[in-house]
Amino acid sequence: MGEELSFVMENTSMEEEVEERDPERNPMNEPLLKRNRTLSSNPLALVGAKVSYIESLDYEINENDLFKQDWRSRSRGQVMQYIILKWLLAFLVGLLTGVIATLINLAVENISGYKLLTVVGYIQQERYLMGFLYFLGTNFLLTFIASILCVCFAPTAAGPGIPEIKAYLNGVDTPNMYGATVLFVKIIGSIGAVSAGLDLGKEGPLVHIGSCIASLLGQGGPDNHRIKWKWVRYFNNDRDRRDLITCGASSGVCAAFRAPVGGVLFSLEEVASWWRSALLWRTFCSTAVVVVVLRAFIELCHEGKCGLFGEGGLIMFDVSNVAVSYNVMDIVPVAIIGIIGGVLGSLYNYLLHKILRVYNLINQKGKIYKLLLSLSVSIFTSACQYGLPFLVKCTPCDDLSMCPTNGKSGNYKQFNCPNGHYNDLATLLLTTNDDAVRNIFSTNTPHEYQPFSILIFFTLYCILGLITFGIAVPSGLFLPIILIGSGYGRLLGIIMRPYTNIDHGLLAVLGAASLMAGSMRMTVSLCVIFLELTNNLLLLPITMIVLLIAKTVGDSFNPSVYEMILHLKGLPFMDADPEPWMRNLSVGELIDVKSSVVSFRGIEKVSNIVDALKNTTHNGFPVMDDGDEVEIVKLHGVILRAHLIKVLKKKWFLKEKRRTEEWEVREKFSWVELAEREENIEDVIGVTKEEMEMFVDLHPLTNTTPFTVLESMSVAKARILFRQVGLRHMLVVPKYQASGVSPVIGILTRQDLLAYNILPVFPHLENSKGREKSN
Amino acid sequence: MGEELSFVMENTSMEEEVEERDPERNPMNEPLLKRNRTLSSNPLALVGAKVSYIESLDYEINENDLFKQDWRSRSRGQVMQYIILKWLLAFLVGLLTGVIATLINLAVENISGYKLLTVVGYIQQERYLMGFLYFLGTNFLLTFIASILCVCFAPTAAGPGIPEIKAYLNGVDTPNMYGATVLFVKIIGSIGAVSAGLDLGKEGPLVHIGSCIASLLGQGGPDNHRIKWKWVRYFNNDRDRRDLITCGASSGVCAAFRAPVGGVLFSLEEVASWWRSALLWRTFCSTAVVVVVLRAFIELCHEGKCGLFGEGGLIMFDVSNVAVSYNVMDIVPVAIIGIIGGVLGSLYNYLLHKILRVYNLINQKGKIYKLLLSLSVSIFTSACQYGLPFLVKCTPCDDLSMCPTNGKSGNYKQFNCPNGHYNDLATLLLTTNDDAVRNIFSTNTPHEYQPFSILIFFTLYCILGLITFGIAVPSGLFLPIILIGSGYGRLLGIIMRPYTNIDHGLLAVLGAASLMAGSMRMTVSLCVIFLELTNNLLLLPITMIVLLIAKTVGDSFNPSVYEMILHLKGLPFMDADPEPWMRNLSVGELIDVKSSVVSFRGIEKVSNIVDALKNTTHNGFPVMDDGDEVEIVKLHGVILRAHLIKVLKKKWFLKEKRRTEEWEVREKFSWVELAEREENIEDVIGVTKEEMEMFVDLHPLTNTTPFTVLESMSVAKARILFRQVGLRHMLVVPKYQASGVSPVIGILTRQDLLAYNILPVFPHLENSKGREKSN
Repeated sequence: MGEELSFVMENTSMEEEVEERDPERNPMNEPLLKRNRTLSSNPLALVGAKVSYIESLDYEINENDLFKQDWRSRSRGQVMQYIILKWLLAFLVGLLTGVIATLINLAVENISGYKLLTVVGYIQQERYLMGFLYFLGTNFLLTFIASILCVCFAPTAAGPGIPEIKAYLNGVDTPNMYGATVLFVKIIGSIGAVSAGLDLGKEGPLVHIGSCIASLLGQGGPDNHRIKWKWVRYFNNDRDRRDLITCGASSGVCAAFRAPVGGVLFSLEEVASWWRSALLWRTFCSTAVVVVVLRAFIELCHEGKCGLFGEGGLIMFDVSNVAVSYNVMDIVPVAIIGIIGGVLGSLYNYLLHKILRVYNLINQKGKIYKLLLSLSVSIFTSACQYGLPFLVKCTPCDDLSMCPTNGKSGNYKQFNCPNGHYNDLATLLLTTNDDAVRNIFSTNTPHEYQPFSILIFFTLYCILGLITFGIAVPSGLFLPIILIGSGYGRLLGIIMRPYTNIDHGLLAVLGAASLMAGSMRMTVSLCVIFLELTNNLLLLPITMIVLLIAKTVGDSFNPSVYEMILHLKGLPFMDADPEPWMRNLSVGELIDVKSSVVSFRGIEKVSNIVDALKNTTHNGFPVMDDGDEVEIVKLHGVILRAHLIKVLKKKWFLKEKRRTEEWEVREKFSWVELAEREENIEDVIGVTKEEMEMFVDLHPLTNTTPFTVLESMSVAKARILFRQVGLRHMLVVPKYQASGVSPVIGILTRQDLLAYNILPVFPHLENSKGREKSN
Repeated sequence: MGEELSFVMENTSMEEEVEERDPERNPMNEPLLKRNRTLSSNPLALVGAKVSYIESLDYEINENDLFKQDWRSRSRGQVMQYIILKWLLAFLVGLLTGVIATLINLAVENISGYKLLTVVGYIQQERYLMGFLYFLGTNFLLTFIASILCVCFAPTAAGPGIPEIKAYLNGVDTPNMYGATVLFVKIIGSIGAVSAGLDLGKEGPLVHIGSCIASLLGQGGPDNHRIKWKWVRYFNNDRDRRDLITCGASSGVCAAFRAPVGGVLFSLEEVASWWRSALLWRTFCSTAVVVVVLRAFIELCHEGKCGLFGEGGLIMFDVSNVAVSYNVMDIVPVAIIGIIGGVLGSLYNYLLHKILRVYNLINQKGKIYKLLLSLSVSIFTSACQYGLPFLVKCTPCDDLSMCPTNGKSGNYKQFNCPNGHYNDLATLLLTTNDDAVRNIFSTNTPHEYQPFSILIFFTLYCILGLITFGIAVPSGLFLPIILIGSGYGRLLGIIMRPYTNIDHGLLAVLGAASLMAGSMRMTVSLCVIFLELTNNLLLLPITMIVLLIAKTVGDSFNPSVYEMILHLKGLPFMDADPEPWMRNLSVGELIDVKSSVVSFRGIEKVSNIVDALKNTTHNGFPVMDDGDEVEIVKLHGVILRAHLIKVLKKKWFLKEKRRTEEWEVREKFSWVELAEREENIEDVIGVTKEEMEMFVDLHPLTNTTPFTVLESMSVAKARILFRQVGLRHMLVVPKYQASGVSPVIGILTRQDLLAYNILPVFPHLENSKGREKSN
């Protein structure tokens, strides 16, 4: 109990050289897919492609003597400085995220722009094979760069990173997620993967990039080159970093869609587990900065200094120019879109789950397999994008002034067609993903696309959306789902043409929204993101209805795609709502099946501490004091493993058994130092035999205000407390009073309160009741 | 301790006839303004205009045997029925709020429309005095109707109602807030007050109306005519009603501004204290329904069946037709708007506070004083609105086809001017408030208004905004602040004309936004509301910056206007963040200064229960059991006063001291019944002498899973637990183990954890540290 290992940290120092070479070291060598969990199991999760130990975070304020002294001794000026720094950091997070998003956009637009120009050039000369080889080769190379970086330097940079951030904000730290290397690989990898025309977006990676920036700023720089300035160190604790990462995630979404309010709401609805209105406000500040940066950059690019970067700025799918007209009766087609979208979304989740399981098995085999997988997907994608447009017939242009468009972005690509004709499928496939969405969202174009082309487009992106996500490159889920959804919306528009007057471009938007809601299960934030993306407020009511219906339908089949990934990775995410059967189980029953607590006296022998640290994996230890009378034991509080290690490392030992004075502690330790989480027991070298017989006064370092529950408390309520307050350890106290009994009968941690850890131990609970949740 | 009176309830039955005549009965007869609070004081607050007892709500799930049985016995079908009903109620809340909002809009537009038409008719005939008398008389009559209804039938319907709803969702019930009478008075009163041209809006009242509808639906109808259907009773508990009222409040905001996302966010940021993502979703459903209702109604009115209701539909201040152009350098004027707006907003709060204190003293004197106050304000408003336009010069029209506009809404009122001229001040004053805002927000009109007219407009609405809010009619704060702010924005525009090209209509919008943020201190929700109101997404970035700056400036002076009103009313609202000095105080110290706990044995004598209920005002009592050994006492849980009264009322007594069986309890009580809060000790009549000697088995009715804290817990952390989990009682347990000691040493309630109750008892804490909050 109290068991959360700091194995990962230990490895960091023990195997530092190993890590340099293989950041995906795997101390377990067991696939996570076949796990058998119980209460006493250690927390493991898939980090990158391999299984590692993970650790919980200390979001609770550790109210020990040092904290109180520190707090009392802070002057008004220092408090102001802290507040100003806090805002400055939020500002910097927004600024840097905005700048990096700008650079990524610039790079992607230019690389893929020049690539497509060359390919179009070959096609116009009818050198089709050469064009294909060039297209394939460039995409292969770009994918190779993205993938080799991910595989060799930062396996955690693969994928979107959003599930891990969600877990972090819930209180679970995944190792190697927010380092400088990850940031670098994510930026370059994202540019490579998106430019390579793979079916993935840059939104997920931007969220991760924003969080990395936030985390690096909070700790004052990369791990090896930190700023030692005292005031930055004040932010180097789990609580402040949590706030910063929330800001970073919002800024990322904002930068991806230029949706400042949508970014804040995305963090609020999907990513963050705790939320205060002060944080809402600070996050809002970050996204405002991002928007200003993007705006400044668009102004700059209007002057044509940005190469091939388009004119449209960053609002990707502007449909504001269309006069939306719909009436109350259009609610029927809108409902149909929502229902089918919900079904498709949950089907997508289901299939993606199956494919990710297979991919995990492939990826675990080694680096070369990961690389080969990525490259095969790239070859397949290139072949389809280049080859399929040859299957469709050319369409004659209506308006020769705007059609065909050659050498620039826009609808109506000529491809292999004679002059005055265009190839509608090439318009959708042989372009960047952003342009593809822009083209399919384009309004007043009901006859631009042939049904057959839309069908091919939809089918192709269904396949690509499923097989691309799990490969070892940075990838976002938004864009693939938007692509599938817009194809589905257009298809439905063609079928429903006799019955409704809604524009086909709008139906594509609604189809995309319904599939997003059906897969990701967000409502308010998606609604606002779509609002800000499409720049058309009149769409709001029908978008809302589509989202609500699609989410309702999707929820009746399976959980959201992020929950599914969290579960697949084994991250111990704690939901807000407990399972109903948890009301029938008391924490006392949980404690009974765990091993007993290891506790310390207020003034403890060094040897006992060293033994406990070496022989247990607990992270929190109750500290007891003898009362004035015999037989009476008083609970003083909980001491953390990290603090005990600090004591041993600094050799803060006493020759005799006595309480220390305030100044003695303050000489050796500061609160800021204690809040940092960097020590491990292996760092403690050479405690001599004499020192082993000495004593340590644990009182000043003990958190005197731990949260407690009675043994009769139901697991459901204990979980609510744990989750709402953001705990790491929860003490269980007896419900009776008697002499000679310990005032603490157990410690509960996150692992003990998770349904999939409890159920194997109490199998009768699962059958007792269905899964009605009290929302 | 555990002390929260149900006095209000007692009075309900004892003085039922009295209440019929005076819904503002005042058992205390002491002004709340001079209060001297300590920990043992009873919770009092200003309800309507007088001081009443208030009560806390039970948001915690009462996990007693009955609850568990009830939960276990629910079939899958019943669970489905509950979920469907929950959604149906959310749907109905949206539907009814939408319909009522529609009716209010229709009534207001028609009443004030015909009133203004007649007045304009008199003016065109140059019968100025007659016009004035008609204007004054109509406004007087309308104010009289609104005010007399409020004063005589529902004093709680006066004002916006938002602070009380905020308190309800925080866990404090204000009596007589959500009844059918209040709903009726609020609707009619709001129509009257708004039509009377008073400087107040219908948004606050609509929020209250939405909440009333929600509450009435949840309890199955008005107090005296409830539906007895079993399934509706499942919603008649504090938790489900909390969710419904959240939906209602969102629907109200949505209906007021046709801002569905803004409505949800307003509830989230400003009104609600607890929030789950499931609720976010349900609230979103309610607002979607409201929008559909409003849309259907606008379609209907397009056919001209709605009398004078304007064409613009309900988006009040549409500025979407303007091409917004601004560049990065415009950040300077925008920052200036924000800074001055923040200062003005906090100044407004400060002055409003002073005036409300004076008004409270006047209102407490009696009904006739309240009525006179309202009527004086009405006369003053009418006189200014009619008289001031005579002071300004007439302006010649630029475009004779659109100017002057007579007989319809729009800019350029002729008033007393010759043909081909218009009176710009009459355009702003002699119109409905909605039209005034529309006119002052109108874009591309930099020279329409003379600086002198804007100055008069601004000054007048500053005065009216301060003196109108506290009178006894339903009144919202949004519109007055928007009016002041838009005047200020235009004024600033005139001053800054040489330096910026931002349109003056947009500056009016930004001015309104800055003053709102400076006074109400919301950011994200205001931003979205303004977005949805003005229908122009390009305004988003500058609106965000204005809001952030104005809020920051405002926060450095005083708290938000709602917090200020909450404090003035004495509602024990509990903030999310504890005060810093609370870390230096333990709950044990709080317990020491309170009287001791009254507890029961598991099987208790009837006479003891009756004594405790009569002689204490506690609402929760710990239930203890003797253990197997002597001297060991076990804590069984907490029993609520309401449940004890139910036991006495049903005379569920035992002749001998024994534990009861499950079926015995279920025969007498159901969980649904226990969740309802309607009993009081005076209802218990005639417990005979023999019955007094009998026993009650309290076990099955006791909440066996109360939340507990150790006596050494700091008040700051205890408060976080209390607030985050939503408690009413928190047990304090000793930190040591010893025989013969009670396992519970005290009970803490909301009153014990509020700063202004603690500080008088521990005066040294206040001086120890400034008010740094850890946000």
